[in-house]
Amino acid sequence: MNGILKIDRDFIDHFPSTLKVIATSSNGYDHYDIDYLTKKGIIFCNTPSLAADQVADLALYSTISAFRFTSIVENNFRTSLNAAGNAFLSRKELESDSFDNETGMPVLKPNLASTPPFFSLGDYIGGKRVYSLENRIAGIVGLGAIGKFLAYKLNLVGMKIHYTKTTELTKEEHLNFHFPLTYHQSFEDIAKVSDILIFCLPLTKETKHLLRKETIGLCKDGVKIVNISRGQIINENDLVEALENGKISYAALDVFENEPNIHPKLLKRWDCTITPHIGSSTVENLQLSAHCCQNNICDILLKNGPGITNINKLA
Amino acid sequence: MNGILKIDRDFIDHFPSTLKVIATSSNGYDHYDIDYLTKKGIIFCNTPSLAADQVADLALYSTISAFRFTSIVENNFRTSLNAAGNAFLSRKELESDSFDNETGMPVLKPNLASTPPFFSLGDYIGGKRVYSLENRIAGIVGLGAIGKFLAYKLNLVGMKIHYTKTTELTKEEHLNFHFPLTYHQSFEDIAKVSDILIFCLPLTKETKHLLRKETIGLCKDGVKIVNISRGQIINENDLVEALENGKISYAALDVFENEPNIHPKLLKRWDCTITPHIGSSTVENLQLSAHCCQNNICDILLKNGPGITNINKLA
Repeated sequence: MNGILKIDRDFIDHFPSTLKVIATSSNGYDHYDIDYLTKKGIIFCNTPSLAADQVADLALYSTISAFRFTSIVENNFRTSLNAAGNAFLSRKELESDSFDNETGMPVLKPNLASTPPFFSLGDYIGGKRVYSLENRIAGIVGLGAIGKFLAYKLNLVGMKIHYTKTTELTKEEHLNFHFPLTYHQSFEDIAKVSDILIFCLPLTKETKHLLRKETIGLCKDGVKIVNISRGQIINENDLVEALENGKISYAALDVFENEPNIHPKLLKRWDCTITPHIGSSTVENLQLSAHCCQNNICDILLKNGPGITNINKLA
Repeated sequence: MNGILKIDRDFIDHFPSTLKVIATSSNGYDHYDIDYLTKKGIIFCNTPSLAADQVADLALYSTISAFRFTSIVENNFRTSLNAAGNAFLSRKELESDSFDNETGMPVLKPNLASTPPFFSLGDYIGGKRVYSLENRIAGIVGLGAIGKFLAYKLNLVGMKIHYTKTTELTKEEHLNFHFPLTYHQSFEDIAKVSDILIFCLPLTKETKHLLRKETIGLCKDGVKIVNISRGQIINENDLVEALENGKISYAALDVFENEPNIHPKLLKRWDCTITPHIGSSTVENLQLSAHCCQNNICDILLKNGPGITNINKLA
């Protein structure tokens, strides 16, 4: 990832020989050379996902966004200067059914300004239909801590919960949810049935570009995409192409393939909601993370312990 | 309300004498002269709020928006061209703590572009703190059909549910929720304790301008406001003033005082999320409403009935 300092062998060789512990407030640590830290006698502690609940809140926000086309309607509201402008997005008789591929906005008739304002109806936006979330299938890709919180939240907005994950939940784990969850063995299987795909899984060699041209092809027409996990799970070029040709009707993204940079076309489109990797960024989460670092350091330096959330173990 | 045709005496006199029923797909009917319709022998049927669940979805979206400052971060993301721009909103050492009153955006240092991009942290936005929703007090003003759906949804994102309403729920109704709800007898009482106020009540002479300079003064500093009911519940001039001076930290609005027009300052501010009265606008809701009209017409014309959701009764 760009923008994150690589803590490699060369860098580590500059640490003083008295350094005993590195405690980071983040969950990910792929930019550290953990083996080399171990060899140098330095314990490394991360902060496991204390923020899963708050990341799931943002995923819930993103899901509602994707169904109700919020960035399109808010942008249209702001540029047409009154709420009535939205009626022009939604009335078949006034509109062509086409989207401007460049902007991800419905094409407006040129006489928009000369028509008297009237009430807005947002059920039909330039050829795309605005559905209720109720009874739609949410495909949660990766049912870890975040995915589980999200399943509860999406059940409460009436969605049918489907998930995929390396290992299926046990019967007891399923029962704990108090509502039915449908398991799919592969990403391909869940892609075929979902009205929205929500990516909540870690980045590995296997999950890189899980969503790409071929797998997008398996999806329902007009599928929606949410990503709050890692940007490289999605091939952004292929995502943009699918937004342009309408296969994907909306994307809500908190993470990006080349963070902090973003595909220039996504930046300008309005059929996507984009937030700058803020999933876990709340005051409370940062305080919890700071406590976690503190506890690790105290355990190692004061109690001669191995650390509480240590990643490596010294021999 | 602007933009809605007034069906008054003069207008009604132009109807043919054979007209027996008017069935509207909307809930509100304050623009109809119902008494005169009755006198002319015309039955009037509305469509009661079939869309409460979907309006509550939008209120949930608006609530998450208000806590996570989504319109500010998305606008900053789009204008600073990469996710790193957000870090400049959130890092105390780089920023002044002040907001630009005109735009509702944090003031950025002029050297923004010359600093290398780094990771975004959104816990602190130009002097405003980004809190988790968990354990914050949601003050639901009006616990009707929409408010009840919303209470369930906000409970699932961990908020403490407070409400005000003409009559307190019965003990049995409270128990049906399976989580505690705190009742307040007056708007003034709930205003004092709430981290966010969510307006879900009908417009009457008593509720007009319920939120105005004096009642805003009772609120916690940095309170957030959501309105998905009727625009005239809020005095928009007073709301804008409170956003400008920071008393209100964020507003998410789906309805406006002079709809379809909106206060020009709200249109340009980014510390508010604005949607153009789309709360109930989904394909499914409009289909349900059409069925409701159909059933009313069939009951009256085919079965000689009084209508199913009729507002008036003929003598």
